[in-house]
Amino acid sequence: MYLTNEKVAVLGAAGAIGSNLAQTLLATRTANRISLYDPLEKPLEGTAEEIYHCAFPQAEVTWTTRIDEALKDAAYIISSGGAPRKEGMTREDLRRGNAEIAKQLGLDIQRLTPDCKFVVVIFNPADITGLTTLVYSGLPAGRVSTLAALDSTRLQTALAQHFQVRQDLVTGCRTYGGHGEQMAVFKKGIAVDGVPLTEILAGQKANGVGMTADQWMQVQERVRGGGARIIGLRGRSSFQSPAQQSVEMLRAVLGESYEWPCGAYVNEGSFCHIMMAMRVKVSKDGVAWQQPEGDAEDLKALEESYQHLVALRDATIADGILPPIAAWGKHNAHLV
Amino acid sequence: MYLTNEKVAVLGAAGAIGSNLAQTLLATRTANRISLYDPLEKPLEGTAEEIYHCAFPQAEVTWTTRIDEALKDAAYIISSGGAPRKEGMTREDLRRGNAEIAKQLGLDIQRLTPDCKFVVVIFNPADITGLTTLVYSGLPAGRVSTLAALDSTRLQTALAQHFQVRQDLVTGCRTYGGHGEQMAVFKKGIAVDGVPLTEILAGQKANGVGMTADQWMQVQERVRGGGARIIGLRGRSSFQSPAQQSVEMLRAVLGESYEWPCGAYVNEGSFCHIMMAMRVKVSKDGVAWQQPEGDAEDLKALEESYQHLVALRDATIADGILPPIAAWGKHNAHLV
Repeated sequence: MYLTNEKVAVLGAAGAIGSNLAQTLLATRTANRISLYDPLEKPLEGTAEEIYHCAFPQAEVTWTTRIDEALKDAAYIISSGGAPRKEGMTREDLRRGNAEIAKQLGLDIQRLTPDCKFVVVIFNPADITGLTTLVYSGLPAGRVSTLAALDSTRLQTALAQHFQVRQDLVTGCRTYGGHGEQMAVFKKGIAVDGVPLTEILAGQKANGVGMTADQWMQVQERVRGGGARIIGLRGRSSFQSPAQQSVEMLRAVLGESYEWPCGAYVNEGSFCHIMMAMRVKVSKDGVAWQQPEGDAEDLKALEESYQHLVALRDATIADGILPPIAAWGKHNAHLV
Repeated sequence: MYLTNEKVAVLGAAGAIGSNLAQTLLATRTANRISLYDPLEKPLEGTAEEIYHCAFPQAEVTWTTRIDEALKDAAYIISSGGAPRKEGMTREDLRRGNAEIAKQLGLDIQRLTPDCKFVVVIFNPADITGLTTLVYSGLPAGRVSTLAALDSTRLQTALAQHFQVRQDLVTGCRTYGGHGEQMAVFKKGIAVDGVPLTEILAGQKANGVGMTADQWMQVQERVRGGGARIIGLRGRSSFQSPAQQSVEMLRAVLGESYEWPCGAYVNEGSFCHIMMAMRVKVSKDGVAWQQPEGDAEDLKALEESYQHLVALRDATIADGILPPIAAWGKHNAHLV
């Protein structure tokens, strides 16, 4: 009935993303054995009670404020347990505090569940928190990933709105590299109702609608500001789409298909010692990245996005939170 | 891929229940064509954007602040669009204002979607708002129902916690009549890991645990205070369990099984002109109530709960919101 009966730990379960994760894991029959963790006891118990009142069949949901109990023998971990982004903050403002939290998460994984099969890190800046978790967890690189779909689904949304077509008729929307302002939007591969975006930008129409270079820039701006826009509209940061897409990442590890980018540790070619949104294959072994297909402009944007992430990574090393790259292998033998 | 491709209107979609409903309808592949309505434009657009960013396949989700657009030709309606219950309020405090909203909902249904197949009313006090919606909608009685499962699932939760068993090993938990403080808890039919509760109360054990009459009273108290307890723990009223269970009610109309009580219009035997939580069969024609099975004490509790609802109904008539019973047939030919 559920894709897995193994233990899934949801960290940050008292929060909006975490409580949605718990419900979505059960409602979609993804997992029935769920450990809810949060340091805040009252809202955590409130989340658990709500989930109990849903009365999901075969559910075995427990809650705890002790990380040891939550992570012990967890086969899968989804963590939204960072500090949330508030109105006016950039994702990078959060970096230092959340990188510390990610370091502790990695150490806890290594100590409590070293055979963990897959970890999804959601809290921002995910590229840095995911990388930090990976380094300290000791897990194989493909077993730690980050939620990286939302820029791509926001791009799909914005294009569907411009062309007035059903959203899933906009295909091939992919952003790689950093999550947020520095993402690389790949034009190549995007099609609207079957018409390649490159042809639309050269004068073709889709659903009777054209798109100027200026409008295409505006769409990308809208995507870059997509997270901030949700905060402006709802008075809180995104929680439904991160939870939903994270569950879909886990479902991919459990055998379902998944079409969006995921965070992947890359250390090959021109990209060294970095975690970033990449084209991936997802399997029971986690994520395996592949070279994204793009035109020269797309690839240049990815290179720039990578450089931005390198700066964030190096700042996190300078802060003493991430170890120097040369020492990563001491923490995680898979990263040698 | 979805149980229905017909239009589902979600009213109150900017709220916590409504936005969860939208996601859950799509995530569980219940419905793909969803109209989100709320008078509050900004948070409504925020909800819609979050749903778009989930990128559900084949989704056709629209949002509007105009009720005419939302309800026009809706095959199914789920409304959480009342005022929410705040800390310290009883459900009855909300009655008058929410009954006015329910009256308008009924009139709007009659005007805009008179062939609507099923309406789930969630907002409190649901027995009164559901009844008021039914009277003014002109729909057949079985096509308007209320969410009435949560007292029963809270009872299941509390018993599972007492006996330390997996929740779904507690079977047959049913509360009928009013929702909330005046509910009738039916002992008959409840079993814990196969042991009837009546035998447990007579000295038997389940999972090695017994239960005194006093403990059974405490469990019922816990259930009666279940909604208020969520408010105390989370700082907000329940939203995940109402949304989840409402979607499961709709799934039942679309062919799935559903085991919990639903609000049903009852006008037979000792129960006249009332909507209350009842034992039901759910089919494509909506809900059809059946006589609940209980012992003398259970049935006495139901009679008392009914009398409580009669008083609320009559107060709503006295307020001029519900018409006098003799005039219901003028508003709804199915209620003659």
